[in-house]
Parts: sequence; C-alpha cells; structure tokens
Amino acid sequence: MSKLVIVGTVAFDAIETPFGKTDKILGGAATFIGLAASQFNVDATAVSIVGGDFPQEYLDLLSNRNIDTSGIEIVKEGKTFFWSGKYHNDMNSRDTLVTELNTLADFNPVVPENYKDAEVVMLGNLHPAVQQSVLDQMITKPKLVVLDTMNFWMDSALEDLHSVIKNVDVITINDEEARQLTGEYSLVVAARKIHDMGPKYVVIKKGEHGALLFHDDNVFYAPALPLEEVFDPTGAGDTFAGGFTGYLAKTGDFSFENMKKAIIYGSTLASFCVEKFGTERMQNLEDDEVHRRLLQFKQLTQFEIELS
Amino acid sequence: MSKLVIVGTVAFDAIETPFGKTDKILGGAATFIGLAASQFNVDATAVSIVGGDFPQEYLDLLSNRNIDTSGIEIVKEGKTFFWSGKYHNDMNSRDTLVTELNTLADFNPVVPENYKDAEVVMLGNLHPAVQQSVLDQMITKPKLVVLDTMNFWMDSALEDLHSVIKNVDVITINDEEARQLTGEYSLVVAARKIHDMGPKYVVIKKGEHGALLFHDDNVFYAPALPLEEVFDPTGAGDTFAGGFTGYLAKTGDFSFENMKKAIIYGSTLASFCVEKFGTERMQNLEDDEVHRRLLQFKQLTQFEIELS
Repeated sequence: MSKLVIVGTVAFDAIETPFGKTDKILGGAATFIGLAASQFNVDATAVSIVGGDFPQEYLDLLSNRNIDTSGIEIVKEGKTFFWSGKYHNDMNSRDTLVTELNTLADFNPVVPENYKDAEVVMLGNLHPAVQQSVLDQMITKPKLVVLDTMNFWMDSALEDLHSVIKNVDVITINDEEARQLTGEYSLVVAARKIHDMGPKYVVIKKGEHGALLFHDDNVFYAPALPLEEVFDPTGAGDTFAGGFTGYLAKTGDFSFENMKKAIIYGSTLASFCVEKFGTERMQNLEDDEVHRRLLQFKQLTQFEIELS
Repeated sequence: MSKLVIVGTVAFDAIETPFGKTDKILGGAATFIGLAASQFNVDATAVSIVGGDFPQEYLDLLSNRNIDTSGIEIVKEGKTFFWSGKYHNDMNSRDTLVTELNTLADFNPVVPENYKDAEVVMLGNLHPAVQQSVLDQMITKPKLVVLDTMNFWMDSALEDLHSVIKNVDVITINDEEARQLTGEYSLVVAARKIHDMGPKYVVIKKGEHGALLFHDDNVFYAPALPLEEVFDPTGAGDTFAGGFTGYLAKTGDFSFENMKKAIIYGSTLASFCVEKFGTERMQNLEDDEVHRRLLQFKQLTQFEIELS
C-alpha cells in the first residue's frame, strides 16, 4: 500500500440539470478524487484550501473515509471556491453560470510533513504552477505522478502546463483537450505527441464513449458503461482519476497491465458518480455494488475468439 | 455454412476527402457488404441493379470472391446509381454533392431461385418497402434477418420502415439515427424502444467510438480500433454489417455470445475499409492481416480482473 497525495479544489457547487437543481453542495476535484480513492482504503491526504464558510461535517466526511484533511487550509475570514453550472439536455455540454475563486485565488498548497515521501501523487485540475509546487515539496521522488488538466490552462498558462507535464508519469485529459494541446485530430497521433511532452502514459477520457490508455505502442480502450440515465456528470472525470490512482496506490503496481485494471476501476466508480447530484452517490457506495458493476464491465467487454 | 442473401445498392461513388479525391469508383452497400462477407467464404448472392455503364470487371470482382451476381439486374439502356460526397476535416461528417438514382429508382429486387431458401438475409440500406419485398420472396423463413437503415427513411418512409422492422431479427443503426427513431437520448433506452418495435438484437454503430449490441438486458460494447488516420470512411458501416452477417452465416450460430464475436469481426474488417479509398483495401485483404488485427482487438479490450 502506497501513500497518496491528492491536490485539488474543495468547493461548493450549485448544479442545474434537466432533472433538477441543487443549492450549494459539496464539490471540487480533490473531494471527488478523495472519495473515489477511499474505496481502496488507501492512506491518502487531500491538499486544498477552503473558507470559514466550509462546514466541518464536509471535512469529517473525508476524514471518516480515511482521507487526512490536515493539508486542507481553512482561511477563517475567506470564502470557499464556488462554481455553478447548468447542463444542456444532452448532458454532454454545460454552461458555467458562476465562478467565484475566493480563497482559491491565493492557494499555496502545503503537503503535510508525513506525506512528503508519498509514492503516489495525484495532481487534480489546478493552475499548472500550483501543481508543480506540490511536486517541488516532495522529499523523495514519487514513483507515480498523475496529472489532470483542462483546456482553460492551455489557453491561459500553456508554458507552465508544458513545464509540469514534463514531470508527470500519467496525464488524464479529455479528447477535445488532447486535440487542442497537440493540434492533431487523430487521438493516436495526439497521444504520441503528448507522450513526447513527458508522460509515459496518456489517458484520454471520452465521456460516454469511455477512455483510452496509451503507452508506447500499446493501447487499451475501456468503454463507459451504457447508462439508462446520466443524472449529473459533475465530478465524473475526477472520480475516474481518483479510482484509477487509488487502485494503483493500493496495489503499488504501476505496469501497463495493472493500469488497464485501474482504468476499469476508474470507469466503474465514475458510472456511479453520475447517478446522483454531486458526491451523493459516492458517499455511501458499498463494496458489493462496485463488485457487481465490475462484473457488468466484464460482460460488457469480454469476448472469446480463439487466436493462436 | 448458411446461404446468405445480400440486397443493397451497387453503385459508382466519387469521393473527396482531405487526403484526395477519386473519379467514379466502385461503391454501394451490397458491394461493401459482399466484399466483407466474402472473407468468410460464405455462399452468398448479391441482389441489386446497375446500368449498361457498369463494367463487367466490377461484377467479376464480386463473382471471383464467390458472390453470386445473377441477382444483379443489368438495365442496358440505363445508368448505374451514382453518389458523390465530400468529407469534412474531422472525417465524421460529410456533404452529399450528387445523388443520381438512375436505375435504382425502379429497383424491384428479384432473389435468385436457389437462394430463396437462404438461412440468412442481409437487407442493406434501401427503401424499407424494397427491403420488405425481398423478405416476401423467401420460400422458407430465414433464421436470421439483419437490416440496415438510415435517417433518410425515417424522414420519408417511416410507416414502411416500421413495417419491415417488425420482421427482422437484428437492426444496425447509428447512434443519431437510434435517437431520431425513438426520441430518446440514452442509447440504453433507445435500444429498448427499438427492441419493442421488433428486432431482438439492436446494434448501434458509433463510428470511431465503436458499436454496441443490445439483447434484452444484455449489452456488449466493441470499441473501434484507434487509427492513426482515417483515409476514407465510405462503406465502413456496410463493411461492418457485412463482416457481422458473414461471420454469423458461416458459423450458423445466432446466439448473443456468437454475435459478440461477429461484432468484433465486423469492427475489424471496417478498420481496414477506411484505410484506402472505396473498396480498394477490401479487394485484396489477406486472412493473416485480419488475424493480426483481431489480436490487436483482443489486446485493446481484454483485461484480467478476478471476480467471483
């Protein structure tokens, strides 16, 4: 079992979908990543920042699941990062209604002392310079660094993004962002170009179409479980990344073969995340539910063709 | 080995892609379906219509691959169906530049006598009333009827489409068309509604995102092989359908389990089709190339998670 450092936002989200809307609820990349990783009972810390308005019960929710919260700075006089969005009818696109950075604007992540030798680091979507500052604090070189990012940083901080990308082992990025980052339409060619930027492993997330894992000339394709209904996609990508990283941290095996399994676990957990608003479904997910859905994933994808 | 009846267009295509353009070349649904099915050395006939301008060498190309062409009516004074299209840079959308129905406007398919007891019938994309007329000619009820269709018939001949759909076992349809036919965004719900219209098996084609097979509560998802370059997508859907149906006709096993394999074969053959213009790649495809690509498909999708 490896120690895991998670850095990312801890936030309030207000979400509107065709199925309903929420007031301010618990959200943020580090939250979703942490909840997903906690399925594997890893020894993890969440590094983030919140304001004095952030409820203790949300922090307890993480610590009750074995996520150390000592790295979540509480700025008493500040307010917590707030995001509000509205999904379109197809649930694949959304409009951002409100972004209030609040305390996040001055976020200087501090990794707790006893996690500075963690083997695995998961850099959630943040300014790439902030992501780099976490790596700079590690006193031993992590065995595995996973980075998530988005098009916003390609538009506003491309140089910093290129700098931090050089130092990571795995990047998770969606298909449109991979195309934007490389100028290539073919995901095979895009993955190769991103590989050349640093990451030995490139995970391309395609939402309802699943995820691809590229490593040298190897490719693995995990479909997303076809769902009757996507209730709220918020946090699905972070849940995927958290499941992926959590499984790898638990097993300590960072081979391509094991990453395939990690992708399947990530996809499985993401398929739960979208069933309810925000973190609701992830807060009380039982092991046997996960187990049953993994079986569904096997049935969905496995076939028998005898080839010599 | 089952006998196979293929009905569909045999045509001239003129294609423009970002990589180049062609003059009038061999095309048509029955052509692509036939070439794909011929990989399995099935006893097949192609039922279609062409004009006096259609070269004998194109007919020979089919008959040399064991596709009976006696059901292809040649209207000496007529012209062959002609389609011309231009693909956009993403290769996922295209504009139709020319559609000349010519002899196709009066197509009354006639199934050759010795194929009226065929076990398998593949109804390529055509007016649904024409598709039905083929079924009406069968003297024994086929064990498997596969139908392909498109949005054009939903707009112009929906009632006829509903009539013929009642009589088929498998429908192949793309994701947007499945949504149009049912008014449902979720493909799971759409497949269930199409299932209720008649077909016990629903295959939803998602292009570069692969294909889904639905049967009652069972789902199988075959991704498309990620390709460096899609040179010309023309005929990929028909090649998929031809590979799917050809494999089923060869094995005579129409179970869900065997249909999974048929989907993989269809996807594999389609991945070759798009590598060159029109039928070029399919005309001289070797068994060992197919074999190697099936291995790639296994590597792409298969994983080991021990679950009890």
